Amino acid sequence: MDNSIKKIAVLGSTGSVGQQTLDVICALDTRFRVIGLAGGNNLRLLERQIKEFGPEMFYSSAKPDFDCSSKFLSMEEITSHPDVDLVVVATSGKEGLNPTLAALRASKTVALANKEILVMAGEIITREASLHQAQIRPIDSEHSAIWQCLRGEESKPQKIFLTASGGPFYHYSRPQLNEVTVKQALAHPTWKMGKKITIDSATLMNKGLEVIEAHWLFDIPMDSIEILIHPQSIIHSMVEFVDGSVKAQLSFPDMRLPIQYALCYPDRLSNLELPRLDMNKIQSLKFEPIGLNKFPCLALALNAGRQGGTYPTALCAAGEVAVELFLNEDISFTDIATIVEETLEQHQGIMQPSVEEILAADVWARECVRKRRAK
Amino acid sequence: MDNSIKKIAVLGSTGSVGQQTLDVICALDTRFRVIGLAGGNNLRLLERQIKEFGPEMFYSSAKPDFDCSSKFLSMEEITSHPDVDLVVVATSGKEGLNPTLAALRASKTVALANKEILVMAGEIITREASLHQAQIRPIDSEHSAIWQCLRGEESKPQKIFLTASGGPFYHYSRPQLNEVTVKQALAHPTWKMGKKITIDSATLMNKGLEVIEAHWLFDIPMDSIEILIHPQSIIHSMVEFVDGSVKAQLSFPDMRLPIQYALCYPDRLSNLELPRLDMNKIQSLKFEPIGLNKFPCLALALNAGRQGGTYPTALCAAGEVAVELFLNEDISFTDIATIVEETLEQHQGIMQPSVEEILAADVWARECVRKRRAK
Repeated sequence: MDNSIKKIAVLGSTGSVGQQTLDVICALDTRFRVIGLAGGNNLRLLERQIKEFGPEMFYSSAKPDFDCSSKFLSMEEITSHPDVDLVVVATSGKEGLNPTLAALRASKTVALANKEILVMAGEIITREASLHQAQIRPIDSEHSAIWQCLRGEESKPQKIFLTASGGPFYHYSRPQLNEVTVKQALAHPTWKMGKKITIDSATLMNKGLEVIEAHWLFDIPMDSIEILIHPQSIIHSMVEFVDGSVKAQLSFPDMRLPIQYALCYPDRLSNLELPRLDMNKIQSLKFEPIGLNKFPCLALALNAGRQGGTYPTALCAAGEVAVELFLNEDISFTDIATIVEETLEQHQGIMQPSVEEILAADVWARECVRKRRAK
Repeated sequence: MDNSIKKIAVLGSTGSVGQQTLDVICALDTRFRVIGLAGGNNLRLLERQIKEFGPEMFYSSAKPDFDCSSKFLSMEEITSHPDVDLVVVATSGKEGLNPTLAALRASKTVALANKEILVMAGEIITREASLHQAQIRPIDSEHSAIWQCLRGEESKPQKIFLTASGGPFYHYSRPQLNEVTVKQALAHPTWKMGKKITIDSATLMNKGLEVIEAHWLFDIPMDSIEILIHPQSIIHSMVEFVDGSVKAQLSFPDMRLPIQYALCYPDRLSNLELPRLDMNKIQSLKFEPIGLNKFPCLALALNAGRQGGTYPTALCAAGEVAVELFLNEDISFTDIATIVEETLEQHQGIMQPSVEEILAADVWARECVRKRRAK
């Protein structure tokens, strides 16, 4: 076991995964030191975190209105800083893309919760990681499960079964889906998460993004990744090997476990704050086949993933704007898919895009949604 | 991947696991060469196997009545022969004990299906393996599952969940169990196995022996091993780590997969003859808590395992004789436990026994059953 203290920078520290990352660091405080924090607009929370963890450097997207002795730096400066060992990327959307690239180019270990980065720029991200011998460790529970199942295995997986709770509306009819309120959509049955990802889980867009993420993380074809509805969120994913043996990872659904695994790897540490699965209380683990037709966002995401190039970026950007519109009660739940679909239909994709082309596709897609809404 | 041809000796080649081992070797014939075979009383089958595989050496417990160019040697001579790379021990009861010790002392890799060897002499076997840097690879599906789940992990398991189908009578009442016929007991719901182990599965004695086996194989306390009834035999066992993460191994219940894994490790190879699990057809994986009271053989085995010394040997020997009596329709199904219990009550155990003391305890227990039956 490696007992040296790891120096960590947390991007998106005021978000759900960011806060849970700091919880894990608190529980295992002899192992880690927070030396960089980057938050969004929640300045009060960021101020408290800076007070508690005393990082050497920080960043906030809103102009800081508090005094502190930590140095204000850009996210790229933080993630590539010589003192940093490991960067937790818990930002959302595209904002973590350049800081992640900076971290990889500085050969830092990156614990990645921000799936859009791989969805948008998987080819560039994985190439830079390999070029600079930087490790990307997944934080998403499904990808952590796959990573754990692949641990020590020399052969590539033949198939990945990505489990999905199905979200709160899996058994809703199409007319029922039309009537879904914001409050209903924010009440996820098994996971406590941020708003954007909770809505993405309800539309199953999130599962589509996860398939693309898994494709890049584990270098496996999109069509070798199957989605399996497992409403209890206990099996977090499964891997089938060439000999037909299947490995699954199970745990109580709590993001702190995959976060901790990514921080501590290759060690496993006891953390009494993590709830445990009681196998004796589980009478059955249930599965259902996935219905692609009922959840058009999922089909759109898988299709964009297969198309590649800038299509996944257009998908992410349009999806982000659509979810914002839904959260503002400007559009209905089923309109989310319509907006994404219309945007993708109009998108003129670029293959093997540069970072600039990816960011331009993001801007284009947002503009495209805005224009159509203005009509 | 290691592409050199492995030279294999199969002890118990005419039994169920032995025959399936030869099936796997046939399917992957570019990887293996059979250079030793040892069979029991089924001389016709052994003769056919010798004709098919042309081993350099063979052994049979019955005097061979056929001509062949292979050399007749003792099992110890075969397992320690300089040409042998890997020994599959698929004998039953105590007969494989000395040949296994000979293999380990000659630093051979041992793929072990004969669980009684570890139950009787776990301390000696694991000590000799470590002393001579010989690897023991489990073939039992549950232990193969645990071994696969532990692959690449640096930390010891905190808990093992050994799954059990529960056998054909798990929901029988006590009076129903009294009436069980040999035919009923030989019809296992999920596994195709030899007679002795099928009866041991019906009494759950087999699961008790497996707990002791896991205790020695994975150096984990008996009380950290929990049994979980899982009637479908799809999850073959699970491991819980110190961080609360649980890994499970799943596959279609077919002994050829764990046999192949033990032969090919660390490689995983495609074998089109192995049936595959269709995860899309599995609607649920079911579990039930274990009822120790209804299956006294299980409680007796766990208790003998905790006592240690020669108690597990007395358990195995009495159990073997009792199962023979049941198969001959001399005693009822529930008498099996009574006979084992009476024998263990009379046994004066020796702690940290030598191989001679273990074999003496075996003889004593058989004699003890015989004497009581004569009364």
